[in-house]
Amino acid sequence: MPGSASSSASERSSIADLSLAPIGQQAIDWAQQHSPVVDGFVRQQLSDGALAGKRVALVVHLEAKTAFLATVLADAGAEVVAAGSNPFSTRDEIAAALVERDIEVHSTRNSGYEAWEKDLLSVADTGPDYIIDDGAELTVRMAQHRPDLFAKLKGVTEQTTTGVARLRSLEAADRLPFAALAANDAQCKHLFDNRYGTGQSTVQAILNLTNMLLPGKQVAIIGYGWVGRGLATYIRAMAGRPIIVEVNPVKALEAYMDGHEVAKTEEALPAADFVITATGGLRAITSRHFPLLKDGAILANAGHHDLEVDVESLDRESTSHRVVREGIEKYRWDDEKDLFVLANGALVNIAGGLGHPIEIMDLSFAVQGLGCHRLATHDYEPGVHVIPEELDHAIAAAKLAANGIELDAMNPDQQDTVDRWLD
Amino acid sequence: MPGSASSSASERSSIADLSLAPIGQQAIDWAQQHSPVVDGFVRQQLSDGALAGKRVALVVHLEAKTAFLATVLADAGAEVVAAGSNPFSTRDEIAAALVERDIEVHSTRNSGYEAWEKDLLSVADTGPDYIIDDGAELTVRMAQHRPDLFAKLKGVTEQTTTGVARLRSLEAADRLPFAALAANDAQCKHLFDNRYGTGQSTVQAILNLTNMLLPGKQVAIIGYGWVGRGLATYIRAMAGRPIIVEVNPVKALEAYMDGHEVAKTEEALPAADFVITATGGLRAITSRHFPLLKDGAILANAGHHDLEVDVESLDRESTSHRVVREGIEKYRWDDEKDLFVLANGALVNIAGGLGHPIEIMDLSFAVQGLGCHRLATHDYEPGVHVIPEELDHAIAAAKLAANGIELDAMNPDQQDTVDRWLD
Amino acid sequence: MPGSASSSASERSSIADLSLAPIGQQAIDWAQQHSPVVDGFVRQQLSDGALAGKRVALVVHLEAKTAFLATVLADAGAEVVAAGSNPFSTRDEIAAALVERDIEVHSTRNSGYEAWEKDLLSVADTGPDYIIDDGAELTVRMAQHRPDLFAKLKGVTEQTTTGVARLRSLEAADRLPFAALAANDAQCKHLFDNRYGTGQSTVQAILNLTNMLLPGKQVAIIGYGWVGRGLATYIRAMAGRPIIVEVNPVKALEAYMDGHEVAKTEEALPAADFVITATGGLRAITSRHFPLLKDGAILANAGHHDLEVDVESLDRESTSHRVVREGIEKYRWDDEKDLFVLANGALVNIAGGLGHPIEIMDLSFAVQGLGCHRLATHDYEPGVHVIPEELDHAIAAAKLAANGIELDAMNPDQQDTVDRWLD
Amino acid sequence: MPGSASSSASERSSIADLSLAPIGQQAIDWAQQHSPVVDGFVRQQLSDGALAGKRVALVVHLEAKTAFLATVLADAGAEVVAAGSNPFSTRDEIAAALVERDIEVHSTRNSGYEAWEKDLLSVADTGPDYIIDDGAELTVRMAQHRPDLFAKLKGVTEQTTTGVARLRSLEAADRLPFAALAANDAQCKHLFDNRYGTGQSTVQAILNLTNMLLPGKQVAIIGYGWVGRGLATYIRAMAGRPIIVEVNPVKALEAYMDGHEVAKTEEALPAADFVITATGGLRAITSRHFPLLKDGAILANAGHHDLEVDVESLDRESTSHRVVREGIEKYRWDDEKDLFVLANGALVNIAGGLGHPIEIMDLSFAVQGLGCHRLATHDYEPGVHVIPEELDHAIAAAKLAANGIELDAMNPDQQDTVDRWLD
Repeated sequence: MPGSASSSASERSSIADLSLAPIGQQAIDWAQQHSPVVDGFVRQQLSDGALAGKRVALVVHLEAKTAFLATVLADAGAEVVAAGSNPFSTRDEIAAALVERDIEVHSTRNSGYEAWEKDLLSVADTGPDYIIDDGAELTVRMAQHRPDLFAKLKGVTEQTTTGVARLRSLEAADRLPFAALAANDAQCKHLFDNRYGTGQSTVQAILNLTNMLLPGKQVAIIGYGWVGRGLATYIRAMAGRPIIVEVNPVKALEAYMDGHEVAKTEEALPAADFVITATGGLRAITSRHFPLLKDGAILANAGHHDLEVDVESLDRESTSHRVVREGIEKYRWDDEKDLFVLANGALVNIAGGLGHPIEIMDLSFAVQGLGCHRLATHDYEPGVHVIPEELDHAIAAAKLAANGIELDAMNPDQQDTVDRWLD
Repeated sequence: MPGSASSSASERSSIADLSLAPIGQQAIDWAQQHSPVVDGFVRQQLSDGALAGKRVALVVHLEAKTAFLATVLADAGAEVVAAGSNPFSTRDEIAAALVERDIEVHSTRNSGYEAWEKDLLSVADTGPDYIIDDGAELTVRMAQHRPDLFAKLKGVTEQTTTGVARLRSLEAADRLPFAALAANDAQCKHLFDNRYGTGQSTVQAILNLTNMLLPGKQVAIIGYGWVGRGLATYIRAMAGRPIIVEVNPVKALEAYMDGHEVAKTEEALPAADFVITATGGLRAITSRHFPLLKDGAILANAGHHDLEVDVESLDRESTSHRVVREGIEKYRWDDEKDLFVLANGALVNIAGGLGHPIEIMDLSFAVQGLGCHRLATHDYEPGVHVIPEELDHAIAAAKLAANGIELDAMNPDQQDTVDRWLD
Repeated sequence: MPGSASSSASERSSIADLSLAPIGQQAIDWAQQHSPVVDGFVRQQLSDGALAGKRVALVVHLEAKTAFLATVLADAGAEVVAAGSNPFSTRDEIAAALVERDIEVHSTRNSGYEAWEKDLLSVADTGPDYIIDDGAELTVRMAQHRPDLFAKLKGVTEQTTTGVARLRSLEAADRLPFAALAANDAQCKHLFDNRYGTGQSTVQAILNLTNMLLPGKQVAIIGYGWVGRGLATYIRAMAGRPIIVEVNPVKALEAYMDGHEVAKTEEALPAADFVITATGGLRAITSRHFPLLKDGAILANAGHHDLEVDVESLDRESTSHRVVREGIEKYRWDDEKDLFVLANGALVNIAGGLGHPIEIMDLSFAVQGLGCHRLATHDYEPGVHVIPEELDHAIAAAKLAANGIELDAMNPDQQDTVDRWLD
Repeated sequence: MPGSASSSASERSSIADLSLAPIGQQAIDWAQQHSPVVDGFVRQQLSDGALAGKRVALVVHLEAKTAFLATVLADAGAEVVAAGSNPFSTRDEIAAALVERDIEVHSTRNSGYEAWEKDLLSVADTGPDYIIDDGAELTVRMAQHRPDLFAKLKGVTEQTTTGVARLRSLEAADRLPFAALAANDAQCKHLFDNRYGTGQSTVQAILNLTNMLLPGKQVAIIGYGWVGRGLATYIRAMAGRPIIVEVNPVKALEAYMDGHEVAKTEEALPAADFVITATGGLRAITSRHFPLLKDGAILANAGHHDLEVDVESLDRESTSHRVVREGIEKYRWDDEKDLFVLANGALVNIAGGLGHPIEIMDLSFAVQGLGCHRLATHDYEPGVHVIPEELDHAIAAAKLAANGIELDAMNPDQQDTVDRWLD
């Protein structure tokens, strides 16, 4: 029986190797040290006991930062059960460290899709009250495969654009019988995570994988949303030369006014040394684009879907391909040129790097942790909700305070009084 | 009789000196050359005759860019009557050039408040159908002093935050019997005008007035809205060191993540070589702050109100003051230090500089001109409206096209189809 | 008799209008306030009386910063006689203020070349001991036209590349019978003046003259020396897009690594919205280039010679030209396009702007003033010399100290001792 | 007998594991692909046979980029023998790949100092004609331990500041009987390697090791030479806040004018989140500084010596220390705070990262390879020499050409002819 007090976490869990726990614990400690908001403000808010005895399923890429959130939830009395939100990204030493701390985990690195699905259902079968989800991966599977337990869910918080879209689809289909919080829509999430976090970590991952230099390189960036503009800012700051492709004219004009070259895909690609997709959609670079790319072009994905660079088509249409360096696959195209794909087209900053910086996840996980707490302490109608602006402000203020920064309050005499001009 | 075909614009107008027209015409020609959107897309939209014979009152800072809009409206058949939106900013040579082109003008540089009010009422007395307004200055005065003509107005477009707020107050008080378009809320207005236009032109005006250098200077920026972040970006780009004061924690955290020092007013001011207000409110720097400023500090305002730097209090509390250089007033404070105020606390980029760059006003005036055209071609309910997103996109696309940039359209296979995951 | 104690400076001077003195004095006071090195360290060094009773000719662009140096020299007892180093750049109010302070001046704004030559000879005829020169304009004329007085000169300090080259030519021709100091070669001159001063003030002048915006503009910069890289840095910082033309491959590679586009003139020009010359040579843009420029291209010069943009040829080869705005001349080219030249091809930051920022000239004039003092206190052989590195360091340290910055000294234990590895 | 035709490279070499060769070959191929100058211009120059049959000892950090140079030398007929320039930095798979390609190698990763010394002497014993050296490690050892073979050396090229200093010491002591080329003094080496290469790779290594974010972080940089300013540029570009410590006032003033905070060590350290040394000397951060650092401060070294952060003293004076994450050592200081040291104080970009980007080493190794070729084709006097400027220019031009960039030549009519002004 899952979660029974009489069995240990170790007995209930399915992980790779418990002996890795000490290494994992080191990494969690390092994450804690640089997570002042989760370790301070969030921990303090959760100390009211509202989550004590509640089962919380945590299904996010399973690495040190995620694990630290798990420990804070557990310290507040929650019965946490964790799994990874992707079959390839779990770190086994982190999973081990959580189990060592008596948290139930079902996850193994590079488990493959089938084993991963099974792990998720194992989490589902513990009967969670709340889910902290990523891509709505657990929520959707419970709706499909565990309808009874799904019906008993008290709430979900979700951190990605994709996941929020899925929750809204469920709501529209009248299949969301509980409250869901769109953590992604919080300012403390998308303003920082998408812009600064993805920008820095994507550039870093590309440079690490290739050992190359940005100065002088032309970098086509497909999409100028928060992620695309974060990328463009960092790339130009490091003396690369961005070329922006964007379908929305106002965003394209912003790119232009930000000083970037702006072009259609067909004009941008022939010059590009690197191509980075950041559209949030599919097939931003696909069959009709491969002929335009120059010999040696390097393709990477910073968006949401593994097919923004359409590796399926590239695989099918190229004459051969092979790994030429860790994380770099070379495709021979038409006997005339080589195209290189980083991290198989998966999110390059996670699959080919360290993921987001700790301090960014401190903000994102504060939203997730406090979102879960709000679900337990407020009566929300079923449906998708956002966290209130006051909570967003409180998280930002906690982050600033952790860095020694206090803010002014507005003085009444600063207000523009409308009776200055109306009769 | 105003606007009668039998009297010339010259007879109906009240301006300083008609002989200045050739100089003014040069400036308008230069503005035209760099206003491809107003000269192209706007001109073309207006060619349907919808404004032919309509009387349009244009009450905006009367300089070359405004004048060019006036000529485009007139070319489309509108009977344009123009005045300045401020008693000090009108350029007499521009007024002369407009009259020379048979456009009625009531405005003189440095007329003082009383003559300015009279000029506005002269415009009101021509019985406009539409107003293109700035700060709602004409609209409000017609409401107060010309109620009959006010009742006959068919619409107003308004380009400032302040003016939009006033229009909403009128609407709330049930005193807005016609449609008003909030041009300021268009993306092609606030994203570019407030951020890039004010940023560049404010920094430029301060350097021109002082002949000083930014590298090494500490610059306190009060407020981190669009204007404040535009300022901070340019100042750091030119090697100045911004210190941001902001009351909203999320905006303050953005400033911090953008790499700026963030502090309370009382910590920021003692170090500041320059202080620039950008709050949109009143008295951001006032009596309680003067003691904190260092000897030689230079104060400038980039916000909306002439009292963001509270020159009234400074005047009252200082022991003496005098002009020490064109546009720079020195205040002797308590026999211990000198404080310098640029452009008497008025908007430093307009009162002490050239205003916004032409290309920025090309966007803002496209919104205003097309807004007026929409009022004439669509049935709007009374109340405050915004322009539709398609029009925003069309303006941005026209600007890009004028710079030789075409955009991609989205391919259907790029869409994320939700049935990929929903059963 | 020039300089006689019995005649007043007013009687001996030839200037435009003495009544302008109060306005000029304001500007000099403002310059003083922001010249801590000249007003402090230089003033203190000069207080030893070494220049007392010496006649010092000061021939530099005659505006507020230069005038402040003149007053410091006069306060130290020198008999200063001043003229402008260019027939068009003198500010009459500054000349008046100097005369009011009993300093002899021979200079009038826009005097034309003939009158300017006469003014320089009037300065020569006062029989100076030392010259503080710009372009070696006075030195060369004394060599040619006043050989007897030239033979009595005790020394010259010179601040420009051009002037230093001329002095070295004199030395090579064995016609330099006294010591000359190459102030331009001091680090506190060229590292700051050429890079930061010209960069900021050129961009500022171009934006002021045109009322245009940099974002999105392509700017061809001809030459990537200190001036060119200063320009490129500021232009990109303000979201313009530099294209660098450079003949030296190492400098070109630096431009490329700095993230700029690098191209041959013929590739750079067709795309350029602005073209700025910074070569230090002649005819960087001339007859063979005009056909390549696009309609509406704007040409400006930031280098040393008025013919870097070859306005003579443009004048001859264009079908017509006229002023279209203050400081902007439009040339009609072959009935197919218009080309615009700023400030007639003269140095755009001086002829079309305010010149260098005060704080920069505080460094450059410290080098000049202390150079003159060294000539009076040290026995130099005839020939061209540079100031010693210690003096360079002392000026830099004084500038830092004026901004409240102290430096560390090196600790002995930080030295890498070679006997760590040699036997 | 070393190098005999009858024995294979495999028999003569001492490496870890020949079976790693395929992985190493992949990395060398990747390096080749991004080394157009070594693969093109250098290869072509060497094709004259001048190095055919010459024995070339290559003693540089043994990784893919170095290995590629070795293959180009071998392809030109040289008998290459390679070892690493540091006991810890060799990559075993690269050593294996070289041996597989019949190049003799003596090097093993983490061999320790004793085995490393033995490897160097094995290289010495092959009796090289030329050395391509790093830190003069092999040259110095041959002078000490193999005087006969040292006397037969025909030349050395050396790429580091430290190594050049050692060679000059030998020359001064009259113990350098052959020509040495100071590759480090070539513009194509120090302008790019030190500034761009170290800047990017150091920041990258620090972020990789810590998984932290730069925005908002205060980073004390000790030393503002080429490396320090490269660091400061990148750190600010990524929204970190540099504080510069520098003892030379002119360099300190440059830092100030570049917009950085400048301070004494004692003022800079208490605020610093990160401290990076870049002095080229020893003990930039030592016992007197530890008390000033804040709890959690992270120390890294980007200079030349492993003791710029004085880890010996820190080890002795701290109460305990332990590894807390790969590449991060935590020192407990006085029971009051924790200090963190990256990569044990060794060069963080090499010991804790990937070293310099390939494209940078393409330039540096072009200088080394062509330097070796010059030694074989020109008669140099014994002593330290630099490569001629033409060669520097040719390398830069080859790099630009590889990126499709051609340069203008100067036209004769652009020259400033001095007879324009001299009589």
